[in-house]
Amino acid sequence: MGGRALTGTRVRPLALMARDLERARRGGAFGERERAAAAAVIADVRRHGDLAVLRTVRRFDDPRAHTADLLADRPILRRVGRTAPRELRAALDLAHTRIRAFHERQRPTAVEASDAAATLRLLPTPLRRVGALIPRGTSAYPSTALMTGVPARLAGVRELVAASPMTKFEEIDPALAYALSLVDVDLLYRAGGAAAVAALAYGTKAIGPVDKIVGPGNAYAAAAKWLVSADVGIDALQGPSELVVVASRGADARTLALDLLAQAEHGSGAVAVLVSENSALLRELVSALDASAAPVPRGRILLYRAPDTRAAARAANDAAPEHVMLAGRAAAAQAKSIDRAGAVFLGARSAVAFGDYVAGTNHCLPTGGTARWASALRVADFVRWTSRVEMRPPVRELVHAGATIARHEGMRYHAASLEARA
Amino acid sequence: MGGRALTGTRVRPLALMARDLERARRGGAFGERERAAAAAVIADVRRHGDLAVLRTVRRFDDPRAHTADLLADRPILRRVGRTAPRELRAALDLAHTRIRAFHERQRPTAVEASDAAATLRLLPTPLRRVGALIPRGTSAYPSTALMTGVPARLAGVRELVAASPMTKFEEIDPALAYALSLVDVDLLYRAGGAAAVAALAYGTKAIGPVDKIVGPGNAYAAAAKWLVSADVGIDALQGPSELVVVASRGADARTLALDLLAQAEHGSGAVAVLVSENSALLRELVSALDASAAPVPRGRILLYRAPDTRAAARAANDAAPEHVMLAGRAAAAQAKSIDRAGAVFLGARSAVAFGDYVAGTNHCLPTGGTARWASALRVADFVRWTSRVEMRPPVRELVHAGATIARHEGMRYHAASLEARA
Repeated sequence: MGGRALTGTRVRPLALMARDLERARRGGAFGERERAAAAAVIADVRRHGDLAVLRTVRRFDDPRAHTADLLADRPILRRVGRTAPRELRAALDLAHTRIRAFHERQRPTAVEASDAAATLRLLPTPLRRVGALIPRGTSAYPSTALMTGVPARLAGVRELVAASPMTKFEEIDPALAYALSLVDVDLLYRAGGAAAVAALAYGTKAIGPVDKIVGPGNAYAAAAKWLVSADVGIDALQGPSELVVVASRGADARTLALDLLAQAEHGSGAVAVLVSENSALLRELVSALDASAAPVPRGRILLYRAPDTRAAARAANDAAPEHVMLAGRAAAAQAKSIDRAGAVFLGARSAVAFGDYVAGTNHCLPTGGTARWASALRVADFVRWTSRVEMRPPVRELVHAGATIARHEGMRYHAASLEARA
Repeated sequence: MGGRALTGTRVRPLALMARDLERARRGGAFGERERAAAAAVIADVRRHGDLAVLRTVRRFDDPRAHTADLLADRPILRRVGRTAPRELRAALDLAHTRIRAFHERQRPTAVEASDAAATLRLLPTPLRRVGALIPRGTSAYPSTALMTGVPARLAGVRELVAASPMTKFEEIDPALAYALSLVDVDLLYRAGGAAAVAALAYGTKAIGPVDKIVGPGNAYAAAAKWLVSADVGIDALQGPSELVVVASRGADARTLALDLLAQAEHGSGAVAVLVSENSALLRELVSALDASAAPVPRGRILLYRAPDTRAAARAANDAAPEHVMLAGRAAAAQAKSIDRAGAVFLGARSAVAFGDYVAGTNHCLPTGGTARWASALRVADFVRWTSRVEMRPPVRELVHAGATIARHEGMRYHAASLEARA
């Protein structure tokens, strides 16, 4: 995790927050360098398939990897998963149960309307084949296997392929294998980044092409997802993680300092912001952060003083960040004005880290201000909808109206096709 | 609409259909040429704003246009709309009412779950600002104003900006103005293609940036939507229109010929396919098409002979086309196996053209096989979701499980943040 000393943390006026955040977010989920590199990898994988993927695996993950190492199927995952420590398996079981329980309520239902002229329907269908990206940091992330796999399975996805980078020692992380077994993935493709995205999008000998690619990744994976998004569905372009804590009087500075440090622990690019109207709280926070004995993580921590609790909440909402946490006496009132964050954690007890693992909500969230239009990963992301139209006679009035519009739009065969039904 | 003679239509074996379609779809919604041109336009609009847009308007639409012509507000739209012929207004009223009635049933509802440890919510929020692209062919397309505007308004979008190319005579099409008034757009930006997409995505002096851009356009608009999609939400990359008719014994060849011609009328790139197990029907179709007196539209019409009704339906579904129409005795049975089309029209009475105008379903549909993962435009496309997490004590079991996973994932501050809540 690297780390540096954090002394002389400063509190800045709220007016600077928007500009600071814009600067921190510059480049979005990826930059020109990552775009160019990802494009080259995609072209290579489209041409050379698994061999091209293997080249990137050897370069970044394991220099001794062979093609046969790229795949792990259900029996392997089950076998390796059983070797995970009992305590970790129990923790993943609990997380799985809770994530499932909340996502079960998101199941889509058909829409139907009938009148004298027609029966109209919107019918949900699960996607056939989905690829889930599960990144690797200093360790594997079994939690992301649950967050992508649970909604896919609840939607009824027929085939679920996970892609996660190989470790140097050629072994699959037992906790990851266990989590992948919990969501019953069909196959683990042991590669990450742009190569995995390309393999999932266009298929290789080892894996067929999928209909949609979901899940987070590094900037190269994000660039690759964007590049393939005209040919395959993608969920979102997840960039560096973000948290805006809105703290009011009564919040505990030492606990909040841990939340900020946890956010910064997501690595370089991660941003942890705290806004408060309360000067005493801000002072305590500066002390708590500066006193942090352990090495400080690589993300940035920024503190702002707001004129009042309303302005603090408004600034958080305008930023449309991945996470918002509300702590202190004004939290409940402030919650009403937050409707553009990926996820809101309400009250000092509701650490963001609960949402990362065990609360039951999804941790794949929109970053970099994309919460203006994007949402947490949901069951709906694994479903598509077909309209179904069934007309019944007499349709004369509709024929006349439709043909009138069609003629105006220069579509005389459309008009003729309608009039053949009058 | 151009047009050519259609003689010697040939029926091909079903085995060729997938390859033919793949070839017809090559390049997807846009090609390299459109991508490069759109990128240049976007860069120009980001630098020079409305003036850059005006340059493209002068080049493609009206050489005498001025900056002031770029905008039309509510009062203008209402005034011009009133000049539309009464019959056309009545037709648009009927379409509006029916589209509204069906889309009203799509309104999203919050998801909530509570247990001893937490209250979890997924709360929908309407997007703040949306841009709707309304292309122009030989005429304006008021129907697309309804198809984009109705779901946006039902979702509760705060500001709706329509963008549609100017006509040569500087006047707004009265039917378009009327339809835009029906859905109460805030502003019409009188430009199209990549320039309109860039202006909506990044804002100009005349219009602010939107949170999402929806609606169809030409290949340049599609390329532009893809290019800006890391910075703003988009709905889909609509390419050329497609129809696969699955016709079985009992279907009327002359009516189906009109449906195929109507599909081909969408212009070059449009594809109209008919598949049938019935040789007599196919022969009648060839005659009907070859006998077509009027000039034939520019799209392609392709006929295939299937070994049986099942194979015909399966081929249609595998193509995941924009529209499928099922006509003849096997239609109802075949409908069960179509779950990857944008829209299905069931029964010989259910002309696709009903769905284009007045049935009530949306005509903005996924093309080019993207129906594998994408759907018709829906109210859901104008909403985003925020998770809300509210933990309550005791959370000891969750703290322990969460911290166990966090430590395994190398996130010690996450663990500490959780343990501060035990």
